[in-house]
Amino acid sequence: MTSVITLLTDYGLEDGYVAACHGVIAGIAPEARVIDVCHLIPSGDVRRGAAILSQTIPYLPKGVHIGAVDPGAGGARRAVAVEAGGRVFIGPDNGLLSWAVRACGGAQAAYEISNAEYFLHPVSPTFHGRDVFSPVAGRLCAGLKPADLGPEVPLSRLVSLPEPTSQLREGSVEGEVVSVDRYGNTQLSIAAGDLAALGVRTGDTLGVWLGRRQLALPYRETFAAVPPGELVAFADSAGLIAIAVNSGDAAQRLGLPPGAHVRLSPSP
Amino acid sequence: MTSVITLLTDYGLEDGYVAACHGVIAGIAPEARVIDVCHLIPSGDVRRGAAILSQTIPYLPKGVHIGAVDPGAGGARRAVAVEAGGRVFIGPDNGLLSWAVRACGGAQAAYEISNAEYFLHPVSPTFHGRDVFSPVAGRLCAGLKPADLGPEVPLSRLVSLPEPTSQLREGSVEGEVVSVDRYGNTQLSIAAGDLAALGVRTGDTLGVWLGRRQLALPYRETFAAVPPGELVAFADSAGLIAIAVNSGDAAQRLGLPPGAHVRLSPSP
Amino acid sequence: MTSVITLLTDYGLEDGYVAACHGVIAGIAPEARVIDVCHLIPSGDVRRGAAILSQTIPYLPKGVHIGAVDPGAGGARRAVAVEAGGRVFIGPDNGLLSWAVRACGGAQAAYEISNAEYFLHPVSPTFHGRDVFSPVAGRLCAGLKPADLGPEVPLSRLVSLPEPTSQLREGSVEGEVVSVDRYGNTQLSIAAGDLAALGVRTGDTLGVWLGRRQLALPYRETFAAVPPGELVAFADSAGLIAIAVNSGDAAQRLGLPPGAHVRLSPSP
Repeated sequence: MTSVITLLTDYGLEDGYVAACHGVIAGIAPEARVIDVCHLIPSGDVRRGAAILSQTIPYLPKGVHIGAVDPGAGGARRAVAVEAGGRVFIGPDNGLLSWAVRACGGAQAAYEISNAEYFLHPVSPTFHGRDVFSPVAGRLCAGLKPADLGPEVPLSRLVSLPEPTSQLREGSVEGEVVSVDRYGNTQLSIAAGDLAALGVRTGDTLGVWLGRRQLALPYRETFAAVPPGELVAFADSAGLIAIAVNSGDAAQRLGLPPGAHVRLSPSP
Repeated sequence: MTSVITLLTDYGLEDGYVAACHGVIAGIAPEARVIDVCHLIPSGDVRRGAAILSQTIPYLPKGVHIGAVDPGAGGARRAVAVEAGGRVFIGPDNGLLSWAVRACGGAQAAYEISNAEYFLHPVSPTFHGRDVFSPVAGRLCAGLKPADLGPEVPLSRLVSLPEPTSQLREGSVEGEVVSVDRYGNTQLSIAAGDLAALGVRTGDTLGVWLGRRQLALPYRETFAAVPPGELVAFADSAGLIAIAVNSGDAAQRLGLPPGAHVRLSPSP
Repeated sequence: MTSVITLLTDYGLEDGYVAACHGVIAGIAPEARVIDVCHLIPSGDVRRGAAILSQTIPYLPKGVHIGAVDPGAGGARRAVAVEAGGRVFIGPDNGLLSWAVRACGGAQAAYEISNAEYFLHPVSPTFHGRDVFSPVAGRLCAGLKPADLGPEVPLSRLVSLPEPTSQLREGSVEGEVVSVDRYGNTQLSIAAGDLAALGVRTGDTLGVWLGRRQLALPYRETFAAVPPGELVAFADSAGLIAIAVNSGDAAQRLGLPPGAHVRLSPSP
């Protein structure tokens, strides 16, 4: 059996914070395989962390999944271990884990992480990733049960982040910008299936409303189907509609921040 | 036997793309060791990807080497597996792999990656790294043969990137800027051996023509041989001539982009 | 037995330099676990490298620890292997390793790394990380003894970086800015214990002198104890006093570079 621990944080790569977590894990569970999901979540951006974790989790082996985007570290927020789909998610109970848990079929059980005998001492109030989450993850790989971590948390009490909304109505579908990736590709909360339900097929032209602006965009299999520099809509690698510029930066071109309202319709 | 998979991409580190590849590989070949070559290739910069892969490959254990800088992903370009020097290179047939293949003695056999039974489904047209290259690499580590991936590709049909040129003539050597590293060190396509052939020895002064500008630079063992802030030429860690500023940024100082023409001669 | 090798460099992540080190190590010691401590040390910033290595080392398993921030590479500086606290530190003898060695109880023995039979040849004068430190670390994992690397170096001859100073006097404590992390948190050379010695308790207000400026800051368990946007002092995850802005950037707000003089007192 290979045990896997994954790490998603906003610690950045300029410091030794991520290494400290790796080191603590290696000391407790030397045989565990550690996969870095992402450490460049913008500082404290729980929503961005939730989006990346939920879209990556289907491709990660089952294991212990640490999320540490934790602007309330050291404050009143609870630390939790959530079981879902044969995985254990560990992190602050601030909604960071909620989208990934839902993507894995929803929470089956949750426990407060409060049993200090599994922590590193002294516990730094500002670095639970190193002193709480990493040693706990290592011990779970070594056979500890989530129920040993602390009292059970009723599932209805877990903090959930509001899901990005999308709504079919009057022959169009409304949604919002979920995130922008390195290429400037702008991912919407609208699933490819919603467009299919409206009768849109790849090859069609799509009507796109961004606030008061209206665009007509080709809907294609991929950004590479249009000439470099041109705008295009396509179903991205997470199954969501994205707006891109082939070899360019759509987010910059269109000025669309996460949360911006977007409406798509079959004809311009 | 340890099996090694290496990854070079332009996926960046702000998203979960690299982690998805690691996750897919870990699921299929849990015992494989994965080495990240680089994920910060500028988006779609095939030439830069080729330069880094070819200069790093001599130091990587033999294994399966994924290259995913793929501006034509989802378009007509072929995906290939190329055998060279006991290694298997996997990626788009857009020239990205060609310099590394040549550095390993040239291609011995090549196969189109078309046998979809080894892919993750559905295959995202924009994320072959996750859905095609990673699962195929994992399966090659688990015993699959490159010939199982699809029909053989005649070696003459593989796409090759033009090699950076250098030319000895009239007592000087002409070349171009290949790449610029983090320190601003500017690597030329001129091998240390070419300067030796012109009779230049470390300790000499070198004549350098950058377009119409002419400089006289000390040719030394290392940038540390000149005072901080001064320009110097030296044979870099890839055996190529580089122009640097000790504790400074030569690319910025000289304004030399990749591809810029350079001429070197024994005396200023 | 699991053998661990850790890597701290200023190589950055845009090139293949780090991968070359990983590759060399994997070829020599395939079973070693390699942990990246940090590769984004500002180019040539020995002091910043020393701070990160010394603050991370308590959380890393015992192993071989490479430090490669080496502005004098290829020059006259010596390469050394230093034994301390059951660990072996490897790198240039320029002070980079000195704070970590002290954090591990001080050097027990040191050897010049001069026995070229353990190097990769040819040795690039500018890339000892790849050609000297990595192969030597791999061989130490494979059973080589530090004493085999070259002649013993008297401990008094090892280069030490001046430690950041802090001084208790007249009811206050003076120190300096040690480093600034990704969040803009500004770490001082003043230990939490020094404030305790002055009778300061968390919950108190702290007098802070920055040059001629004087501030009164809440001293709390964590930055999250003050409202977003407000300044706060707290004991950070390394046990040192840090000045932060909750959900903001204190270094930017206060304009405090590393080395800046700071004085703290119990009452404003």
